Amino acid sequence: MNADDLSQTRHPIINTTVLSTHRADIALIGLAVMGQNIVLNMNDHGYVVCAFNRTVSKVHDFLQNEAKGTKVIGAESLKDMVSKLKKPRRIILLVKAGQAVDDFIDKLVPLLEVGDIIIDGGNSEYRDTTRRCRSLQEKKLLFVGSGVSGGEEGARYGPSLMPGGHIEAWPHIKDIFQSIRCQGEPCCDWVGDEGAGHFVKMVHNGIEYGDMQLICEAYHLMKDVLNMDHDEMAEAFNNWNKTELDSFLIEITANILKFRDSDGAHLLPKIRDSAGQKGTGKWTAISALEYGTPVTLIGEAVFARCLSSLKDERVEASRSLSGPQGAKFSGNKASFLEDIRKALYASKIISYAQGFMLLRQAAKEFGWVLNYGAIALMWRGGCIIRSVFLGKIKEAFDRDGELQNLLLDKFFSDAVQDCQASWRRAVSSGVQQGIPMPCFTTALSFYDGYRHDTLPANLLQAQRDYFGAHTYELLSKPGQPIHTNWTGHGGNVSSSSYNA
Amino acid sequence: MNADDLSQTRHPIINTTVLSTHRADIALIGLAVMGQNIVLNMNDHGYVVCAFNRTVSKVHDFLQNEAKGTKVIGAESLKDMVSKLKKPRRIILLVKAGQAVDDFIDKLVPLLEVGDIIIDGGNSEYRDTTRRCRSLQEKKLLFVGSGVSGGEEGARYGPSLMPGGHIEAWPHIKDIFQSIRCQGEPCCDWVGDEGAGHFVKMVHNGIEYGDMQLICEAYHLMKDVLNMDHDEMAEAFNNWNKTELDSFLIEITANILKFRDSDGAHLLPKIRDSAGQKGTGKWTAISALEYGTPVTLIGEAVFARCLSSLKDERVEASRSLSGPQGAKFSGNKASFLEDIRKALYASKIISYAQGFMLLRQAAKEFGWVLNYGAIALMWRGGCIIRSVFLGKIKEAFDRDGELQNLLLDKFFSDAVQDCQASWRRAVSSGVQQGIPMPCFTTALSFYDGYRHDTLPANLLQAQRDYFGAHTYELLSKPGQPIHTNWTGHGGNVSSSSYNA
Repeated sequence: MNADDLSQTRHPIINTTVLSTHRADIALIGLAVMGQNIVLNMNDHGYVVCAFNRTVSKVHDFLQNEAKGTKVIGAESLKDMVSKLKKPRRIILLVKAGQAVDDFIDKLVPLLEVGDIIIDGGNSEYRDTTRRCRSLQEKKLLFVGSGVSGGEEGARYGPSLMPGGHIEAWPHIKDIFQSIRCQGEPCCDWVGDEGAGHFVKMVHNGIEYGDMQLICEAYHLMKDVLNMDHDEMAEAFNNWNKTELDSFLIEITANILKFRDSDGAHLLPKIRDSAGQKGTGKWTAISALEYGTPVTLIGEAVFARCLSSLKDERVEASRSLSGPQGAKFSGNKASFLEDIRKALYASKIISYAQGFMLLRQAAKEFGWVLNYGAIALMWRGGCIIRSVFLGKIKEAFDRDGELQNLLLDKFFSDAVQDCQASWRRAVSSGVQQGIPMPCFTTALSFYDGYRHDTLPANLLQAQRDYFGAHTYELLSKPGQPIHTNWTGHGGNVSSSSYNA
Repeated sequence: MNADDLSQTRHPIINTTVLSTHRADIALIGLAVMGQNIVLNMNDHGYVVCAFNRTVSKVHDFLQNEAKGTKVIGAESLKDMVSKLKKPRRIILLVKAGQAVDDFIDKLVPLLEVGDIIIDGGNSEYRDTTRRCRSLQEKKLLFVGSGVSGGEEGARYGPSLMPGGHIEAWPHIKDIFQSIRCQGEPCCDWVGDEGAGHFVKMVHNGIEYGDMQLICEAYHLMKDVLNMDHDEMAEAFNNWNKTELDSFLIEITANILKFRDSDGAHLLPKIRDSAGQKGTGKWTAISALEYGTPVTLIGEAVFARCLSSLKDERVEASRSLSGPQGAKFSGNKASFLEDIRKALYASKIISYAQGFMLLRQAAKEFGWVLNYGAIALMWRGGCIIRSVFLGKIKEAFDRDGELQNLLLDKFFSDAVQDCQASWRRAVSSGVQQGIPMPCFTTALSFYDGYRHDTLPANLLQAQRDYFGAHTYELLSKPGQPIHTNWTGHGGNVSSSSYNA
C-alpha cells in the first residue's frame, strides 16, 4: 500500500490548536500499540509529536481517541509530516522490521535535507541497521537504529532505549530519549556504532526468551511435582519477587496466575500451550552459533517454543510415549519449592553470563566499543527483563570493567555456589519425575562444563583425527597440529579439504 | 594462486602407459587426503582418473608415491585435464568449500561443452549448491552437489555419497558412484534437486557432531564417576559395539582408548581437550533455528565444542568455581555402566528423530521429495555415523513411508521405553556428581517435552500478551487470537509492530 494513500481518510486532520508548520519536535511513523504509546509518552514530556501511519485512517482514529486533547498533531502524508517538523528533522520509524523499514526510508530520503535524522525503533536485524547506516551516510543523512523495549506499558510510561548508529545524531535526540525513558537513574545511553544498538536489543530479547522459559519450567515443577494450585503458585511468585529474583517477569507471572476469567475461573489453564515468536530470540541463537559462543540457554529457550508449537504432534505422541513409572514426589514441599527458586536464580545467572559473552564476542567481531555496565543499566529499568539482578551485573562491571565473564565475579560465583545444591536437587528430581527442563539442565551443564579445566573433548579430537586426519594438539605442545596414523593402514596426509 | 600455475612443477607429468587424449573416464581436482583416496578408489574399480591440483607439484608427488603403478594420469593444467577426458566430461571438485569452488567453476566453464558434468564433492553449504545449480543450468552444464562421507578410510575403500542437483547427470555418474561407494547393499542413491544432497550431508554431519558428543559424555561419566581406567573403558566400548550401539564411532572410540603412545602410555589423556569444527554442525543448528525445528541435541553438541575451545578461560574458571560437595558414587558399578549405555542409546534415538524432523521440514521449505529410508541406507554404510542402528531407521520408514517422527514408530518408542529408567538414573547421578552432560540432558528434556500433550507454554503466551499485547489462543478456540487487558490500565490495541 502506498505510504501516502489517503483512500481511507474520512475527513481532513485538523487540530485547531496547531496550524503553523515547522512546529513539531519529532515525528513518529507507525501507530500500532508501541507507536501510539511512545507518541503519548513524548507528548507527556512536552514534545509536540507529529503522528503518521501508512493507513492514514489510523491517524484519525488515534487523534480522536487515545490522543484526544493532547498536543499531538497528525499528518496526511509523509510530505505533510516532513513539512510540519522542526530542523534537523527527527523521524522515528516504528514499523514492522524488514522491507517496511527500507520502503519508508526510500520514501523519506527525497523529502529530507542534510543532517536530518531517521530513527528506526523497530526490532530490525542488526546487519540491516549497519547496512542502512552506511547507505544513509552516503546521502548525508543521520541514521539511528534503536532497540526499544518495555512493551505496551513500557512504551507508555518509560521504555528502555538502546540507540546505536551515527553518533552525530545523539546530541539531537539525547534529551527526548532520556526524558521518555524509564524513570529513576539515567538508563538510556549511547550503545555504539552501526548495528550495535539493535544487536544489544536482540541479545536483550534472547535473554527475555530465556527468562520466560525458566519461569515456565519453575511453574511446571510447581504444578506437576508439587501439585500446587494457581493461587499457591501466585503467592510463591509474589514471595520470590521479594528475593534476588525481584523482576518484572516474576511480578507479572504472579498476576497472570491469579487472573480470573469472566466466569470466575483462572484464565491461565484455558490458554493454548503453543508459543509464538517473532524472530529476535532465534537471531540471538544464530549469532551465538555464527560467532562460536556457547549461548546454550537462549538456544534451548527458542527450541522450547518450537516444540511447544508442535501441539498436535505432541498430543499424538502423548498417547504412545510414556513417562517414568511410579515417580511420586515424597520430599518436603517447602524446601523443594526453595530448591526450584534457587535453580531458577542460578540458571538465570548462567543465561546472563552467556548473553554478555555474546556481546563481548560481537564487539570483537565488529570492532564496537561496548560499555557493559551501561548496557546492564539500560536493561535494568523499563524493559521486559528489568530486575534488581541487573543492578548486580552493573556493580560487577563497576568492580571490573574488563570482567571477562560474570561467573568470574565474586558476587555471582558466590551466588551460584549458594544455589548449587538446590539446583542439582531440583534438576535431578525433575528428571526422575519426567518434567522437561531444557533451560534448567542446559544451564547446569554449562556451569559444570565451564568450571572443568579438562573436558572430554580430547576424545573428540582423537576421533576427528582418526577418521578425518584433522590433527590434534598435545596438552604439552599447544599450537602444534599432530596427526596420528591410528589404524596403521591409513595415509599420513592430514586433511585439508574434508570438513567434519 | 592461479589454478594453472606451474611455478612449482619440477618436471613434466608423463605416464608412459598413457599418451592418447580423451581416455580418462573422470577427473578429480583437489589432492588432499580425501581427494587422493577417492582417486585411488575409482582406479581400483577400473576407471581411468585424471588427477589435478591447484599446486601442480602435488600432482607429481601423488603420481610418484600413492598413485605409483596405477592407471591414474595427471594434468599440468585445467585445459590439459579437460583435453584428457571422455565426453560428456565428468569432473569432481574436492576442494575447500566456498570461494575455491566458485573459482574452479569459473575457470572450468569456458573449457567445457554442453552436457559436461561438474560434481562438487566438498562440504558446500546447500544454498551455494542450489545457486550453482541454477547458474550452470543457464550455461547448459550439469551440476551435482554430492555429500561425501567416510573420512580418509571411507574415501579409500567405500565412502557414503549423497548426490543431488541436476538429475540428468545421474545416468552418467551412477555407475562410478555406485561402484566406489561402501560395499554390501546399494547405499548410494539420488537424493533430490538443487542443494538436497548437501543438505542431507549437512544433517549427517550435524548428527555426527551429536554422536561424538554423546560418546564424550559417556566417556566422562565412566572416567570421573566410575573411575574406570583406559583399558576398562576400551573394553566397555568394545562390549557396547556388540549391542544396539554397534557403530563405527563406538568401534574407533575403543581403539582410541586402547591406543598407546611411543612411550607406552595411553595417548588420549595427552591430547588437548579443545575441539575444532569446520562448520557443518553449526550450519545444521542454524538451519534448525531458521526452519523452527527443535534439533536441540545437535545445537548442544556444537555449543559443547565452542565451550571446550575456551580452554584457557575454563582453566581460570576452574580455580574459582566449585563443584558439588562430597558427591561420591556409591551404587553398583556394572549396573551404572549399563545405565550410561542406555542413556547413550536413548539420547541417540532422540538425536536421529530430531535430524529427520529437520529433513522433513527442509523438504517442505524447498519442495524437495526426499526418500527418508534411502537416506538412512546411505548413512548406514561408509560414512562416519554408519551403524546397525541406521538399518532400524530404514526399517521404520519401510513400515511407514509417511512416518512423521521416529519416536512414533513402535520399535523406537519401545527402545526408549526400555532405556528410560536407566537414562533418568544416569542423568540424575551425573547431575549430582557435577558432570556436564549437555546432550544427555537435552535429549531427555526433548523426550519429556515431546510426550507432554500440555506444556507450560500457556504461561509464556500469557506473558507475551501481558507485556506486548501479542494475543493468545484458547484451547477451546484454536486459531482465534485473543488479547486480554491484564492490568486494567493497558491499551486494548493488540501488537503488530513490536516483536518479542
